Amino acid sequence: MTDLFNALGIADDATGGSLSVRSPIDGAEIGRVRTTDPAAMEGMILRAQEAFRVWREVPAPRRGELVRLLGEELRAAKADLGALVTLEAGKITSEGLGEVQEMIDICDFAVGLSRQLYGLTIASERPGHRMMETWHPMGPCAVISAFNFPVAVWSWNAALALVCGNPVIWKPSEKTPLTAIASMKILGRALARFGDAPEGLVQLAIGGPEIGETLVASSAIPIVSATGSTRMGRIVGPRVAARFGRPILELGGNNAMIVAPSADLDMAVRAIVFSAVGTAGQRCTSLRRLIVHHSVRDELVGRLVKAYGSLRIGDPRAEGTLVGPLIDTASRDRMVAALDRARAEGGTVHGGQVVEGVPGGAYIQPALVEMPAQTGVVCEETFAPILYIMGYETLDEAIALQNAVPQGLSSCIFTLNLREAEAFVSAAGSDCGIANVNIGPSGAEIGGAFGGEKETGGGRESGSDAWRGYMRRQTNTINWSSALPLAQGVRFDI
Amino acid sequence: MTDLFNALGIADDATGGSLSVRSPIDGAEIGRVRTTDPAAMEGMILRAQEAFRVWREVPAPRRGELVRLLGEELRAAKADLGALVTLEAGKITSEGLGEVQEMIDICDFAVGLSRQLYGLTIASERPGHRMMETWHPMGPCAVISAFNFPVAVWSWNAALALVCGNPVIWKPSEKTPLTAIASMKILGRALARFGDAPEGLVQLAIGGPEIGETLVASSAIPIVSATGSTRMGRIVGPRVAARFGRPILELGGNNAMIVAPSADLDMAVRAIVFSAVGTAGQRCTSLRRLIVHHSVRDELVGRLVKAYGSLRIGDPRAEGTLVGPLIDTASRDRMVAALDRARAEGGTVHGGQVVEGVPGGAYIQPALVEMPAQTGVVCEETFAPILYIMGYETLDEAIALQNAVPQGLSSCIFTLNLREAEAFVSAAGSDCGIANVNIGPSGAEIGGAFGGEKETGGGRESGSDAWRGYMRRQTNTINWSSALPLAQGVRFDI
Amino acid sequence: MTDLFNALGIADDATGGSLSVRSPIDGAEIGRVRTTDPAAMEGMILRAQEAFRVWREVPAPRRGELVRLLGEELRAAKADLGALVTLEAGKITSEGLGEVQEMIDICDFAVGLSRQLYGLTIASERPGHRMMETWHPMGPCAVISAFNFPVAVWSWNAALALVCGNPVIWKPSEKTPLTAIASMKILGRALARFGDAPEGLVQLAIGGPEIGETLVASSAIPIVSATGSTRMGRIVGPRVAARFGRPILELGGNNAMIVAPSADLDMAVRAIVFSAVGTAGQRCTSLRRLIVHHSVRDELVGRLVKAYGSLRIGDPRAEGTLVGPLIDTASRDRMVAALDRARAEGGTVHGGQVVEGVPGGAYIQPALVEMPAQTGVVCEETFAPILYIMGYETLDEAIALQNAVPQGLSSCIFTLNLREAEAFVSAAGSDCGIANVNIGPSGAEIGGAFGGEKETGGGRESGSDAWRGYMRRQTNTINWSSALPLAQGVRFDI
Amino acid sequence: MTDLFNALGIADDATGGSLSVRSPIDGAEIGRVRTTDPAAMEGMILRAQEAFRVWREVPAPRRGELVRLLGEELRAAKADLGALVTLEAGKITSEGLGEVQEMIDICDFAVGLSRQLYGLTIASERPGHRMMETWHPMGPCAVISAFNFPVAVWSWNAALALVCGNPVIWKPSEKTPLTAIASMKILGRALARFGDAPEGLVQLAIGGPEIGETLVASSAIPIVSATGSTRMGRIVGPRVAARFGRPILELGGNNAMIVAPSADLDMAVRAIVFSAVGTAGQRCTSLRRLIVHHSVRDELVGRLVKAYGSLRIGDPRAEGTLVGPLIDTASRDRMVAALDRARAEGGTVHGGQVVEGVPGGAYIQPALVEMPAQTGVVCEETFAPILYIMGYETLDEAIALQNAVPQGLSSCIFTLNLREAEAFVSAAGSDCGIANVNIGPSGAEIGGAFGGEKETGGGRESGSDAWRGYMRRQTNTINWSSALPLAQGVRFDI
Repeated sequence: MTDLFNALGIADDATGGSLSVRSPIDGAEIGRVRTTDPAAMEGMILRAQEAFRVWREVPAPRRGELVRLLGEELRAAKADLGALVTLEAGKITSEGLGEVQEMIDICDFAVGLSRQLYGLTIASERPGHRMMETWHPMGPCAVISAFNFPVAVWSWNAALALVCGNPVIWKPSEKTPLTAIASMKILGRALARFGDAPEGLVQLAIGGPEIGETLVASSAIPIVSATGSTRMGRIVGPRVAARFGRPILELGGNNAMIVAPSADLDMAVRAIVFSAVGTAGQRCTSLRRLIVHHSVRDELVGRLVKAYGSLRIGDPRAEGTLVGPLIDTASRDRMVAALDRARAEGGTVHGGQVVEGVPGGAYIQPALVEMPAQTGVVCEETFAPILYIMGYETLDEAIALQNAVPQGLSSCIFTLNLREAEAFVSAAGSDCGIANVNIGPSGAEIGGAFGGEKETGGGRESGSDAWRGYMRRQTNTINWSSALPLAQGVRFDI
Repeated sequence: MTDLFNALGIADDATGGSLSVRSPIDGAEIGRVRTTDPAAMEGMILRAQEAFRVWREVPAPRRGELVRLLGEELRAAKADLGALVTLEAGKITSEGLGEVQEMIDICDFAVGLSRQLYGLTIASERPGHRMMETWHPMGPCAVISAFNFPVAVWSWNAALALVCGNPVIWKPSEKTPLTAIASMKILGRALARFGDAPEGLVQLAIGGPEIGETLVASSAIPIVSATGSTRMGRIVGPRVAARFGRPILELGGNNAMIVAPSADLDMAVRAIVFSAVGTAGQRCTSLRRLIVHHSVRDELVGRLVKAYGSLRIGDPRAEGTLVGPLIDTASRDRMVAALDRARAEGGTVHGGQVVEGVPGGAYIQPALVEMPAQTGVVCEETFAPILYIMGYETLDEAIALQNAVPQGLSSCIFTLNLREAEAFVSAAGSDCGIANVNIGPSGAEIGGAFGGEKETGGGRESGSDAWRGYMRRQTNTINWSSALPLAQGVRFDI
Repeated sequence: MTDLFNALGIADDATGGSLSVRSPIDGAEIGRVRTTDPAAMEGMILRAQEAFRVWREVPAPRRGELVRLLGEELRAAKADLGALVTLEAGKITSEGLGEVQEMIDICDFAVGLSRQLYGLTIASERPGHRMMETWHPMGPCAVISAFNFPVAVWSWNAALALVCGNPVIWKPSEKTPLTAIASMKILGRALARFGDAPEGLVQLAIGGPEIGETLVASSAIPIVSATGSTRMGRIVGPRVAARFGRPILELGGNNAMIVAPSADLDMAVRAIVFSAVGTAGQRCTSLRRLIVHHSVRDELVGRLVKAYGSLRIGDPRAEGTLVGPLIDTASRDRMVAALDRARAEGGTVHGGQVVEGVPGGAYIQPALVEMPAQTGVVCEETFAPILYIMGYETLDEAIALQNAVPQGLSSCIFTLNLREAEAFVSAAGSDCGIANVNIGPSGAEIGGAFGGEKETGGGRESGSDAWRGYMRRQTNTINWSSALPLAQGVRFDI
Repeated sequence: MTDLFNALGIADDATGGSLSVRSPIDGAEIGRVRTTDPAAMEGMILRAQEAFRVWREVPAPRRGELVRLLGEELRAAKADLGALVTLEAGKITSEGLGEVQEMIDICDFAVGLSRQLYGLTIASERPGHRMMETWHPMGPCAVISAFNFPVAVWSWNAALALVCGNPVIWKPSEKTPLTAIASMKILGRALARFGDAPEGLVQLAIGGPEIGETLVASSAIPIVSATGSTRMGRIVGPRVAARFGRPILELGGNNAMIVAPSADLDMAVRAIVFSAVGTAGQRCTSLRRLIVHHSVRDELVGRLVKAYGSLRIGDPRAEGTLVGPLIDTASRDRMVAALDRARAEGGTVHGGQVVEGVPGGAYIQPALVEMPAQTGVVCEETFAPILYIMGYETLDEAIALQNAVPQGLSSCIFTLNLREAEAFVSAAGSDCGIANVNIGPSGAEIGGAFGGEKETGGGRESGSDAWRGYMRRQTNTINWSSALPLAQGVRFDI
C-alpha cells in the first residue's frame, strides 16, 4: 500500500487528516484525509469563476490538449490507479483497471470533440441576414460523484467540461477520497506539461453533505452534475432549478433484462451474472430484475443458481475473485433486509448468505430471488447484488413489467427474434435511457450518451452530444444588409 | 365582433361562462367563457395518457400530416384569428397577423421535421455490435402560455409536441381564452380532415392558477412548457424537477441593445423603436435597456425622443396605430410606478404619460429613461414600454452592463465593426440565448432555437433541434454476434 | 383524354409539334409535342445563369414558399397528373397516383429544409477566431429523367434544387414529354402565386440526345442529375467530371432479395410480387434476383408461380390490373431475348409469354426464372419483369451472391432472425446504397437518401442530407482578433 | 544527414535504388530509392483488398487506436521528420515542423471520429418500420500526393481512411520518396504496438506516372484521393468516374486576397507575405492574387515591396530564412517565364530575380507584379512565389475579380467592415471552398473541411465530415411489423 501511495504521490495526503478512509476489503483504515473547510468553499468558487473567465477564451483545441495530456498520464498511471480503486472501492482488479480505461477513453473522445463542439449555420428568412447557433462555455461545473465509480464519473464530467471551457469543482464520495486525490495528482502532471492553465481550473472539495450543499446552492455554479441516489437527486434537482442552474442527474436504476424464448441462453447466463454481480451489484446499471419467458424460466434459473454457486467471493485483489465486498456493512444490512422483505412478499431466495471473505469486509453471496410478482421490494433499488426473477407470457406483458418501476436507466432484452428486439427499442418499448439487445444493461461504451429517464433524473453524460449539457446555446442573427425587415412579415413603419 | 366570432366559430363558447373576457382596447367585456372544472383535470390527464399510447405509434410523417393540415387551416383563418388576437390581447393589426404567420411558419417547419427527428448511428467498439441513438415520444405535454403571445407560443409547442408524438394540454392565460378557443376550433377542422387522431390529443384547460398547478404537479405529464414571469418559473421549475418531469421554461427577459460608435443610426433608431414599443413593450424579447456609446448618445437620444413623439397611440385596429393599450390598468400602474422609481434612482424620463387612447383602455406613452447607471429598477423586468438608456466608453464595459442583470433572453449590438460584432457573439460576449447584430432583440425567426439562460429559465422552443425537448433519447447497443465482450476491456469469466 | 389534357392545361402543347408521343397502353399517338431547338439551348442556359444570380440571394425560406405552393398545386392536380402518368408511362392507376404523392411528399420535406440547410460552427484552435461551414447555392442544375418515373424524379431534384437556390433545366425522357409539360403548368401556377421568381428559374428542354449532351457539356451548369442506364452514366459521369462539374447519377440496379429460412413467407411473397412486377418491372429498384435458402426454395417458388399466375395483366387504367404494358415493343423484345439467354444458360422460365392485353401495347407475363447459378444474364439489368431465382446454403454465400453484380442500388433480406438481419446491414453485408429488412427493394420513403454504389453511380437524392449535393460547402475562418497566429504553430516573422 | 536517416530508420532504404532523390536545397543527391515494379501493383492491390475484408470488421474505435498510436509515434519523431521534410522538399524548418504537427492534429481528430462516424436514425412513415442511415467502409483508398506537402496530405487521407475502415496505397511524389518511407517507418512502429492489423493495410508505391495510372484505373480501388495540378485532375477525375470510382481531388488554386479600405494593414502585410512567399509560394493555398482597394493600394504596395526586400532567402535550415528554394530549376524557369509574360501583359515586376542562395538550389526572389488588369497569366496557377496585384473600386467588382478565375480553392478579405466581411462569405460572395476574413488563404486548421470548387476539383479532406468521402452511405428500412404497407400509399393487392 505504501508503494502504491508513493507511486501515486498521495502518501502525504493520506495522513494527518480527520476523515478516516477504510478499505471495504477488510475494513482497515488506509488513510486519514484532510477535509475541505466549508468556509473555504466561497474562495474555491471564486477561483473557479476567475478561472472560467480565462479558460473560456482559450481555444477549445488547446483546451483539448490538456485533456489529451490527462489521457497520457492516465495511461501511465493505469495500473496504480486501478489498484487504488480496488483498494478503496473494493472492485475486483479487472474492474478497477476497466474504470481507468474508461477515463482514458473519454479523454480520447473529448480531444476529438475539442475541434468540433458543432453548432449550426441556419438559413435565414431575411435577405442579407445570416443565422447561426454557437455553443459557448457555461461556467464552473460541480461534479458530485459516488463511491461506486469513484473516478470514472469524474473523468466523464471533467473531460467534457474542460474541453467545453468550464472549470470543475469535484466533491467525491466521502468513502473514496484517496482515488480522487490520486486523480488530481495525475491531472496535476498533465497541467504541468500543459503550462498555462489558470489557477483553480479543477479543484477538489473533500467532505460531507455541507460541501455538496454549498455547491448545489451557489448561483455561481451554473452546472451541477450529481451521481447518486434518487433520494439525493430529489433534493438536488429542485434546489438547482430554484436558482436557475442546470442539474445533470445520474440517479438510481432498477435495470431489467427480458429473456425471450429465442434467447441464446449461454450468452444470457454470462450477461446476467456479470451484470448482476459485477461490482458486487453496486453499479447504477447493475441488473436487478430478470423477466423471463415461462418457457425458458426453469432452465435459466437452474443455470443461474449453478453459476452463482461457483462464483468466487472474497478479496477483490485475488486472481479469480469475481465478487468483492460491499462498500460497508450498512450496505450489507440493507441487502439482508431487502431479502427478508422479498421473502415476506412471496419470494424464494437463492444465495444471499453472509460470508466471511476477508475478515472485516462486508462479504455476501449474490442472491437470486424468484418472485411471484413485481412487488414493492422489487420496485426499489437496493444497491447490492440481488436479482429478482419474474416470469412472463407475452412480450407486451414483459415490456409493461420492465417499465412499471419508477426508475428509467438501463434495460435489455435477450432474443434472436428481430420483431421482439425492434419492439423493445421502439417508441412503445423500453422507457429507459439505455435499451440494449443481447447484452446486459451494464457496461456502456463511452461513445453513446449515458443516462436515463424518470427517477433516474434525465441527465446525459459521456458520448454522443452529451457535451452540450456543459455549454450554453446561443442563437445569432447577423444583419449585414442596410435594411431592417421584420420576421413573419410584420410591418412597423415609424 | 359578432361576425368575427361567427367566422371563427366561437360565438357559443363566448357566452354563458363565468370567466369574463375583456378587450384591453376599451375594457369592454367581449365574452364570458366557461372555465375548466379543476375536478375534471384528472380525467383530462387520463385522456391525454390514453391518447399518448396511440399517438406515439402513429408514424411521425403521418403525425406531421395533422400539423400540415393545421397550417392550412391557419392560413385560411389568418385574418380572423389575427383580428381576434388584436381584440383580445390589444396588439396592432400587423402584429396580430404576424403572430398567426408565426403559427403557420412553425407548422411548415414541423412538417419537415416529421420525416427527420434524427438520432445517430454510432461506431461501436465491439465487433458484431451496432450502436444507435433514437428519439422517442415522451408523453403528454402541458403548455402554459401567457397573454402577450396568446396563440403563437401554443403553436410553437403544439406543432413540435404533436410531431414528436406527444398529446398536449393547453392552459392559456386567463386574459386570452377566446383566441385559445378559436385556435382549438381551427385545429378541430384539421383533426376532422385528418381522420383518425385519438380522442384527447389536444385539450384546452381554461382557468386560474389551480389549473396550472394541477398540470405542474401531475407526474403523468412529463413535459411542462411554461411561458411567463421569472416569478412563475421559480415555482414551476422546482416543482416539476421534484417529480422528475422536464420543464421547458421561457421566462422574463431584460433585453439590451449596445449601440457602438460605428452603428448605422438610421437602422438603430428604427430597430429600437420597434423593439421597445412594439406590442406596447409586452414582448418577452422587448428592448428594455439601451447601452449607447458616449460618442453617439446625444444624437441617438435626440432622434429617439423625436421618434417617440411621433408614435401614434390608440386603437390597435386603426390604420397607422403603432402603440396599442397595455393589457390592463394594473400593468399601466406598474409602469407608472417603475418610472417613479427610475426618477428616484436618478433617471430622466421622456414620455411615459398616461393618454386616453380609447376610453376604458390602459394607454400610455412609451417612455425613454436616461439613467445615470444600471440601478435596481433597470435590473428588473417591467412588462411595459420603458426603455432605460445608459452610456458606455469601452466595449468590455458595455458587455459587462449587458450581462449584469439576472435575466438572459435576448440581446443585440448595432455596429458595423467586425471586431465588435464578433466579440459580442463570442464566448466572452453576451450571455443571452439570443445575441443579434444589427437587428433588435425582438422578432426571432422560427428557424432558430428560442430561449435564454439564467432567470430566463434555460428552455428552448421553436427551431433548430428544440424538438428534442419534447422527446426522450434512447441509446441502443445491439449485439448480433455470438460473443459477449465487455466494454473497456473488462474480463469477467464465470 | 381531351378532358384530361384540358384539365391539365396541356391541350395546346400536345399538338402541332414534331415529336410523336404514344401511350404504351395501346401504342396510339396521344400528342405531337414541339421539341426544343438545340440552338436555343445556349439562351436557355444563359437565362438559367441569370436566374441563378437572383435566386441565390432570395432567402431559402422564401424559396421554400415556392416549393410549398408547388406542393399545394400538386395536391390539387393529383388525380389528373396521376392519370396522365398512367396514360403516358403505362403505370397502373395506383402507381400513377403514388408517383404524384411522392412529388407532394418531397415538396413538404423540402419546405422544412428551407429553414435548415444546416452547416456547422466549429471550434477554432486560434484565439479570437471563429470557424464555420456554410452551404451556398451552386448554380443551374440539369435534370435528365427517364420514362419510368417521368415526373417524380424531376420533383425530387427540383424541390431540393430550388430550395437550395439553384435554377433547373429539365430534360425529360422523349417518351414522356406530356407529363413534363403538365408538371411545368402546375409549377407555373405555383410561380404565379409566388409572384417574383426570376425568369427562367425552371425550364423544360424537350428532345433527344443532343439536348442532353448540351447540358452535360456546358460548364455553366455545375450540377447534372441524370437518371437512367449505366450505359448513359458511363458517358455522362466522365464528361461532367472532365469539366469539373458535379454529376448526380442514379443508374441501373440489379436488386436482390435474400429469403432466409425464418422468413415470413406470406410477407415475402407479397413483397416479391410487388417489387418484381410493379411498374411492370421497370423501376430502377425493381426486384430482379431472388436468393432463397434451399430449405424454403420449393415452397416459395411454388407460391410465386401461383401468385404470378393470378396477376391481372392489361390496361393499367382498369380496376384490378396489376401489370400494365412495357414502355414499348423494343423493351418487350429485350425481355424475350433475355429469357432466351437465361434458358441457354440453364434457366427454367415460368411465365414470360407475350400476351395481347390491349392491342397495340407491349404486354407480357412477368417471368420467374429458376437459375442454376448467377450466370451472365443475371448480372445484367434487363428493364422488364424478370425475376431470377437462385438458392443458397449459408448467409455468407447469399451475401456474396447479392454483392457479386456490378450494380449497387437496392437490396433486402427477409428474415426474422436478428443476427441475419444485422449481418445483412453491417459493414460486411450488402454493398448497396439501400439495404432493407422484411420489405422489398422498391418503394423507398422520401425521408432517406436514395441512390447506390458501384455502377449505380454513387448519387444520392431525396431525403436525409441529399440536399448537400445541390450546394457548395464553404469553410470560413474569421479572425476578429488583432493578432495573426498561424495554424499548426508555424512561425513566420517578417 | 546520416544521423537523420538513422534516426528515422531509412538509411537502408535511401541507398541502392534507381530513383535519385535530390535535395532542392543544393541539388545534391541525398538518396537512391528503389521504385515499385509496376508488375507488382496487382499483388499490392490484391493485398489491399484482402486487408479490407479484415479491417472493415475491426470496430472503428479499435481502428482509431492505431491512428492514436501513429499520433504518438509522430510526436516522438516530429523533429526528425520535420527536418527530413526540409531536406527533401526545401521548406524552412518551422514549416517542416508545422507539417508534422498537422499530421499529429489529424490523428487526434481521427481518434475522436472513431467513436462517431455518425449516421442518422430517421422517422419512418410506416408503422412498425425503422429507418436509419449507416456509413460503412468503402474499400482500398489510393492516395496520390504531391511534393509540396509530402507527408501531411498522406496523413490527412490515411488517418481518416484507416478510421473509416479502408486500407491505403500511397503513391508519393517522385521528388519526395524519403519522407514517405520515413512516414511508413513511423507507422510501422505504431502497427507493431497495435498488434493485429492485417498485412497490407497501408502500402507504399514509389515511382512514376505508370504507378499512378494503375491505381487510377483499378476498379478494385473505389477511392482515389489525388492532390496535384488541375492538369492531372482533368485526367484522373474522368478516368475514375468512368469506372464508377470516387475521386477526391485537391487540385490547383489561384487564391486571392481582397484588401478593403478599412483593412488593418499591419495585419494584411504580414498575412500577405506569409501566404505569398511561405513554402516559396508552392502551397496549393498560396496567395497569388491581391485585389486592393484604390485608396490603400499605394501604401500597401509600398509596404509590401519593402517587406519583400527584407526577406531572407537561402538555406531553409538556417535560422531566420523565410524563403527556401523552389523544388527544382524547371519550377524556377516557369516562374521566370510567367514574369516575362506578365510584363508582356502590362505588368510591373518587383523582385523576381534569380539569386544564388545555396549553390545547386533553385533560389529566386519572390515577386510582386502590379497588373493593369486580370490578364491571362494571372488566371493561371504558376506554382511559385508570384503575387499579382490589381486594384478595385467597389466590393462587387473585387468579388467579381476574385471569382473570375477557373480555380476555386481559397480566398480571403481583409476588412474591419462587417458588411463587407459578410458579403464576402455570403451566397453571392467568394466562390471558393475556403473563404477567410482577416487571415490569409493559406494555413487551414484541420478542423474544417479542406478543398475547393471549380477546377480545384470539388474534393474535401481533413475536418468537418470530410470523413464521409471515405465511406459509403447505406439507407436501411427495417420492417418489424407483420404488415407490408407501401410507401406513398400505393396499393398493390395480389
